[in-house]
Amino acid sequence: MAAEVTVAVDAHGADLGPGEVAAGALLAAQRTGVRVLLFGPAGALTGSLVGAGGASGLVEIRDAPVSVAKEADPARAVRNARDASIVQAAQAVAAGEADALVCGGSTGAALAAGLFHIKRARGIVRPALALPIPVPGSPVLLLDVGANAEVRAEHLVQFAHMGAAFAASVLRIADPRVALLSNGEEATRGTTAVIEAHERLSGALAPRGLNFVGNVEGTGLVEGAADVVVCDGFTGNVALKLMEGVSGTLMRAIRERARSSRRATVGGALLRPALRQLRDELDPEGHGGAYLLGLRRLGIVCHGRFTRLGYASAIEVARQGVREQAVDRTLQALAAAGALRRPPAGVAASEPAASVPVQG
Amino acid sequence: MAAEVTVAVDAHGADLGPGEVAAGALLAAQRTGVRVLLFGPAGALTGSLVGAGGASGLVEIRDAPVSVAKEADPARAVRNARDASIVQAAQAVAAGEADALVCGGSTGAALAAGLFHIKRARGIVRPALALPIPVPGSPVLLLDVGANAEVRAEHLVQFAHMGAAFAASVLRIADPRVALLSNGEEATRGTTAVIEAHERLSGALAPRGLNFVGNVEGTGLVEGAADVVVCDGFTGNVALKLMEGVSGTLMRAIRERARSSRRATVGGALLRPALRQLRDELDPEGHGGAYLLGLRRLGIVCHGRFTRLGYASAIEVARQGVREQAVDRTLQALAAAGALRRPPAGVAASEPAASVPVQG
Repeated sequence: MAAEVTVAVDAHGADLGPGEVAAGALLAAQRTGVRVLLFGPAGALTGSLVGAGGASGLVEIRDAPVSVAKEADPARAVRNARDASIVQAAQAVAAGEADALVCGGSTGAALAAGLFHIKRARGIVRPALALPIPVPGSPVLLLDVGANAEVRAEHLVQFAHMGAAFAASVLRIADPRVALLSNGEEATRGTTAVIEAHERLSGALAPRGLNFVGNVEGTGLVEGAADVVVCDGFTGNVALKLMEGVSGTLMRAIRERARSSRRATVGGALLRPALRQLRDELDPEGHGGAYLLGLRRLGIVCHGRFTRLGYASAIEVARQGVREQAVDRTLQALAAAGALRRPPAGVAASEPAASVPVQG
Repeated sequence: MAAEVTVAVDAHGADLGPGEVAAGALLAAQRTGVRVLLFGPAGALTGSLVGAGGASGLVEIRDAPVSVAKEADPARAVRNARDASIVQAAQAVAAGEADALVCGGSTGAALAAGLFHIKRARGIVRPALALPIPVPGSPVLLLDVGANAEVRAEHLVQFAHMGAAFAASVLRIADPRVALLSNGEEATRGTTAVIEAHERLSGALAPRGLNFVGNVEGTGLVEGAADVVVCDGFTGNVALKLMEGVSGTLMRAIRERARSSRRATVGGALLRPALRQLRDELDPEGHGGAYLLGLRRLGIVCHGRFTRLGYASAIEVARQGVREQAVDRTLQALAAAGALRRPPAGVAASEPAASVPVQG
């Protein structure tokens, strides 16, 4: 089977260790024929691939024993530790050896590696981190969830296009509804940046090809009011952690109540299989993690607690993104909408890398 | 029984109508001896107090049939409709006829009425809306939840003191732990305003008497990491609606699963009483609504869907705030911390009202 897509994977950063990442890579290769370059401690990785059978030929180990996953400031570590596994993986993508990057643990390290090595796509001002929120029914793509604590309207407009193009091409959501997250549905509600972005995305200025549905509030985010929800990285990160917190707290409280009496205990036991199914449906591993959009190549950041299943999903989503030319389609959509930043004559498109805020 | 505290209540704005608000006022009067000035349509209000027995003497009806509750822009309506019930109630507080304001429905109208009639307390730059979040265990006071979409560090610092003083005096939380909501726990994480507020609240600059515990993330907000959590009104409003959305969506999904099979149906029925108890514990009506802090008098805003029980709680919380001198204690704490804005010589303390953003 000839591998059509190659994904570079950082084997460090998973709570369960590099062997679990290797197992995920193998699983993705077996299921889809994707080729994986696996950057991590060769000894441990080789051990976990031994006896894996046919597909193991698709997983190629590159010895990279240095990890920045536990650094207090992973973004700084990425700048300093040139031999770190995540840096080597990003460099393989930058050099064209691989088509996309998958890494786990620190989004700060992933962002830094992406920005410094894969680099921003031409005309993109700020890359964003997009996360599929597992709501019952269809997932909602929320971006930015932490790459940019403060944004201007111009950034939000680009995020809207980046999210829509990714949702259509990779998540296979036809004509995705795009909304701005705000503190009210009216066009006049929100921060200055949100209000200005709303103006640029609607009315006479509305870009063709973008299905902008206006503002959604926090309730709308989880009630399916839009397929792609756009916000600054501060609000997105707070929202994301809050959703985790509320569902965790509520599920714990329900479990506690289900032990509060004999009657409740029996009820809880009978209800358990149905609730387990719900939990699986809401499981974030199925969507492969957060997508790093706006670079020259696609990047995917797995949660540190992902198992091999989550890593396999991430690698498969990366493969899908490459096959569907998600990056090119995003840039075409932005160009058609006039939302790419044009470089002044004689100046490179990107802002200097040093001005990009990267957060650990 | 001599009434020691008088609360002005706007009877418009409740989904269940003015009669329900009157019933709530009566309940509060019966339980605590509070005196209530009830502003609304005299006919309907009188009807619902008929035959109410002893405490009805404590509830005094002021005919105010004009409502701004259903206006598209309630803040503007408050400025224009001088005879509106909410305006009359706020004016009664401003004139010293009543000690605190309780109203329901639109927070925009409440804010506008508070700002234009009760007015900001001297040295307060921006009033804030504070909401007790019903998490299992002790409630968390979140502010601002919508009065100020954009803030500076100075505002966040004042919110921290206002929230702490209110939590200590009215919610009876001893030495409340105060945190900033952010996208990371480190002091370097957040927007420019959050990072600067963190500097002003910690280290060598830390105000005495304020138990500042640093930043909390979205998860920390619902997991009891702090008693008072401070943020801008945009983030606070998104967070609030998101919490409502996530718990609602999750509870609906669980109810659906509990009907997915015969086994699950039996389990759900057995578990129901225990879960109902949890629902009651998480019921926002118990805390009376959102608190409007930073005015010369205390204001409380009930949710439009509150029943008489929620209104009674709100009136009782207002009474408690007056008895505990919450406003004075807040200003004393701010003065002791040097966090009151001092007016330039010869200039009034308040910014011109026109510069205060009021949102519908």
